[in-house]
Amino acid sequence: MIQGLGASEGIAIGKAFVLPNWEWELPEHKVGVGDLALEFDRLYEGIKRSKTEIQEMKTEMDETVGSEESGIFEAHLAILDDPVFMNEIKGIIQRQYKAAEVAVKEAIDHFVTMFDLLDDEYMKERALDIKDVGNRLLKHLLGAPEIMLPSDTQPFILVVRELTPSQLIHLKPDVVLGIVTMVGSPSSHSAIMARAFGIPLVMGVENKLQEPIETGDLLIIDGGAGLLHVEPNAETIMRYSEMRKRHLESRARLQQLAQVPSVTPDGETLELAANISSVKELDAALGSGAQGVGLFRTEFLYMDRSRFPTEEEQYEVYRMAAEKLQGKPLIIRTLDIGGDKQLDYHELPEEENPFLGFRAIRFSLSRKDLFKVQLRAILRASAYGNVQIMYPLIASVEEVREANGVLAEAMGELEAEGVPFRKDVPTGIMIEVPAAVAVAELLAEEVAFFSIGTNDLVQFTLAVDRMNEQISYLYEPYHPAVLRMLRAVVQAAKRRGIQVNVCGELAGDVRAMPIWLGLGIHELSLSAQAILPVKETMLRTYARESRALMEEIFKLRTAKEIRDRLERFHAEATLAAGNVRPGV
Amino acid sequence: MIQGLGASEGIAIGKAFVLPNWEWELPEHKVGVGDLALEFDRLYEGIKRSKTEIQEMKTEMDETVGSEESGIFEAHLAILDDPVFMNEIKGIIQRQYKAAEVAVKEAIDHFVTMFDLLDDEYMKERALDIKDVGNRLLKHLLGAPEIMLPSDTQPFILVVRELTPSQLIHLKPDVVLGIVTMVGSPSSHSAIMARAFGIPLVMGVENKLQEPIETGDLLIIDGGAGLLHVEPNAETIMRYSEMRKRHLESRARLQQLAQVPSVTPDGETLELAANISSVKELDAALGSGAQGVGLFRTEFLYMDRSRFPTEEEQYEVYRMAAEKLQGKPLIIRTLDIGGDKQLDYHELPEEENPFLGFRAIRFSLSRKDLFKVQLRAILRASAYGNVQIMYPLIASVEEVREANGVLAEAMGELEAEGVPFRKDVPTGIMIEVPAAVAVAELLAEEVAFFSIGTNDLVQFTLAVDRMNEQISYLYEPYHPAVLRMLRAVVQAAKRRGIQVNVCGELAGDVRAMPIWLGLGIHELSLSAQAILPVKETMLRTYARESRALMEEIFKLRTAKEIRDRLERFHAEATLAAGNVRPGV
Repeated sequence: MIQGLGASEGIAIGKAFVLPNWEWELPEHKVGVGDLALEFDRLYEGIKRSKTEIQEMKTEMDETVGSEESGIFEAHLAILDDPVFMNEIKGIIQRQYKAAEVAVKEAIDHFVTMFDLLDDEYMKERALDIKDVGNRLLKHLLGAPEIMLPSDTQPFILVVRELTPSQLIHLKPDVVLGIVTMVGSPSSHSAIMARAFGIPLVMGVENKLQEPIETGDLLIIDGGAGLLHVEPNAETIMRYSEMRKRHLESRARLQQLAQVPSVTPDGETLELAANISSVKELDAALGSGAQGVGLFRTEFLYMDRSRFPTEEEQYEVYRMAAEKLQGKPLIIRTLDIGGDKQLDYHELPEEENPFLGFRAIRFSLSRKDLFKVQLRAILRASAYGNVQIMYPLIASVEEVREANGVLAEAMGELEAEGVPFRKDVPTGIMIEVPAAVAVAELLAEEVAFFSIGTNDLVQFTLAVDRMNEQISYLYEPYHPAVLRMLRAVVQAAKRRGIQVNVCGELAGDVRAMPIWLGLGIHELSLSAQAILPVKETMLRTYARESRALMEEIFKLRTAKEIRDRLERFHAEATLAAGNVRPGV
Repeated sequence: MIQGLGASEGIAIGKAFVLPNWEWELPEHKVGVGDLALEFDRLYEGIKRSKTEIQEMKTEMDETVGSEESGIFEAHLAILDDPVFMNEIKGIIQRQYKAAEVAVKEAIDHFVTMFDLLDDEYMKERALDIKDVGNRLLKHLLGAPEIMLPSDTQPFILVVRELTPSQLIHLKPDVVLGIVTMVGSPSSHSAIMARAFGIPLVMGVENKLQEPIETGDLLIIDGGAGLLHVEPNAETIMRYSEMRKRHLESRARLQQLAQVPSVTPDGETLELAANISSVKELDAALGSGAQGVGLFRTEFLYMDRSRFPTEEEQYEVYRMAAEKLQGKPLIIRTLDIGGDKQLDYHELPEEENPFLGFRAIRFSLSRKDLFKVQLRAILRASAYGNVQIMYPLIASVEEVREANGVLAEAMGELEAEGVPFRKDVPTGIMIEVPAAVAVAELLAEEVAFFSIGTNDLVQFTLAVDRMNEQISYLYEPYHPAVLRMLRAVVQAAKRRGIQVNVCGELAGDVRAMPIWLGLGIHELSLSAQAILPVKETMLRTYARESRALMEEIFKLRTAKEIRDRLERFHAEATLAAGNVRPGV
């Protein structure tokens, strides 16, 4: 058994197909001075063909997955226009008299080595993009055929050194049962795509394999746990077959809950909405019974591109989402860039402490031109559904007023242009900065709703960067301080009669259910996969008991005591519901 | 008028003495293979002499300034033993057949360029240290005389490209009126030393000078404002003479307040204690009437050295401080390393967000061996005065209990060894993490006192890194959220009957006085320079009026409204006291 990185959930059992690495035979001769022009022509021709091919993949992706993800290929096209990369290639041809393919190979190696050395996840991703595009270009220069997957109908588990988006786009989910990669990270483009396709994926097993996997080896992967079994024994195969069956059954059983009303046994309601990053994710969310979208993360519209998205591009996406929701609420969060989210085409300043830096609403208020483009696009979409606006990282009344000022300007412009929009579009804010908790009562007078972002709120409250391995054990959503902050926000909001939603990861933890019911949260916004497990828990959790439990919990002094108490409550409720599995 | 960086307060008027750069004539010939051994001998002899000289400076510093600051020279000694630096030098001699002085020069240039490229304040400081040590070594290899300052008795303002600690150590404060440097930062060793000596210092004027300053030019510097005037006109000279006079008069007038009891006009007390980083600073603090030390920052005992300080070394320093205070409280904060404070000899992990990282008590609890050494040293010193212990960056009850567990072990050991210490030594915590505010009532049951560290508390509460230029405008101690947090801490502490002190920078802002009196803070801990201005303000601020003002202020919605209201209050109180200058 090998422990890798779980990158896309699900269990797959099947034979391995090992994709060979792209390897090339490169010409060793020098190019004569008189033939340099020819090499440049070959290079330009290769670039042209590569661009056509990438453009085709982009179109295919637009149709099958959604227009947002296809931005990956826009980024690839941009590499072929990038002067630094191209000048490197041309320089090698011109000054070292090397053939175009050799120059391309050396330029790829140069940039990949450089980016890899940086020890920065983001730059490593860029390195993989360059390799993907560069190899495509090489293929055209060498006239080599693309490595094809087996075309027979026998499904297989794909084993590959690293997975590029262009490889993934051609995979057929009914043939590829799952994927194993030697290197790569669950936050890569490819992993995001695998999750979108619903293909189980385990990454980063390179240094853990005793010997290389070969085509035909029997594999089992558990993409949730990040486990890989090579040539498992009969007992393991049986066990995983059983697990796979139970997994599918439990999914089917949960699926039946999708259309059940979201009500506790004692008749109180808690709305369950979805967090999405693209319109494509809406189908899965609605299929799981989402009562709306509590958080549309618009930053992914801005990432993996070569320039800021236009008003028109954004409007199209927002309108499509609004229409698909048919009147259900769609809360669109304005751009939340900075921190660990960067743009390829707009350099943000390097920061000593990016989490405490130039991010989210701070960026938007410093670039009101861009902010207004986004607000205009959202407002235009508001004519097509129940659209609401949410500002991220708000820390003060002044910021809300300043943002609303830009919104008023955008409204004035659209009004003058005669463009329809919803004039009373509700605006709300994320509560994720401790200051916003402390002045929640003041903020509640400025906005229509709050949505608590537990991830950042916990990080700032505890002064802990959860991505920092050395101290991630201190990241503790069940810290009594966090629960007191949640309570303070709800109390302030209730005094002013506005709703409180929760959209952080904690909302998806079934153990937290009595917290939401006990405090009186209006809506949880969850990833599509979390909606049904959370709903199952809610359907058997009494609001009355939850309130009593919270009174007990606020007397506890440590996170461990609180977690233990919540787990006991959860186990008891599960037992009472006749369901003896601990957790879901 | 030239705007530089204010690095050490005070006004100086006088003639410039421009110190020439250390420049060397280096031999250009190659060394014969047979003479390599000779070059190595010359190198070793130079190193030996440099070490002796640095050791002498260290001894001089120990006697004149204090043993803590002399750690700078320990770091310099360590450079001469550093294998990376030394191997670079030896490699150049051996492989390139260059003379020892050329090798030293090239190695210096290599490391300085490399460190400078890193764009990291800390590494730039290291670069300056290498240059300082390297130049000393060069001097010995070339047999060049040290550049001497004018020996006549006419005082002057020293102008120098950059200032190294070894240059500063030789300056006589009665001859050097002030210093101007072309490059350098107010956080450098040299700037710290200039402040310790009380010499006005303006740094970083290089790119602002129209033409170079020459020896004999008349200069005026204002080290507080960071201003430099070259050949000022008569009017400017008059104005600054007047300012200098007023500055000295006001200092003298304030000095009279040193022995006045620390009581408001309506008879309430607020203790004024000092923040110190070394025993040396105690004299100035006591001279300003400090009623104790509210914050002894022990990290400076750990920095600028080549290894962790021993129990004995720490004990000596703590005991000396306790004895000097003659029974006045001495609150020793345990090691607050990490974030922007690094050790030369113990590498901390590189962090994406160091402020939210592996710091302070988190470091101490991960290295209980080192933590216990410090606690033993503090406990041993507790037999000699009113010593108290304070843990930094506490976020939870668990952390306090864990730290107290190590303290109990240290006590058990000392008891067994028969070493005297104060068995009921009070332990308190810094309140600087928002979580600590939220659970202040729980924490108050575990400790004897709170000390609010406003700098970090404001940063975490607002999610703003104040060192980040792009968003430092958002760092706002008068944010209504911050004031609410201060109030919550005081209320929780009062319910449990423990004291609340404040030791952040905000304590030194005279406008904040009604906040402390209004909330009922027990003690402010301030830099020595801030004690008397703050006391002057307190002596004319009514506690009763402050409480009424705070009620008003808690109704305000923005930091600007709060600042305006506090400034009006301050102006009125100043006016009522018959003192028409706004502020102090």
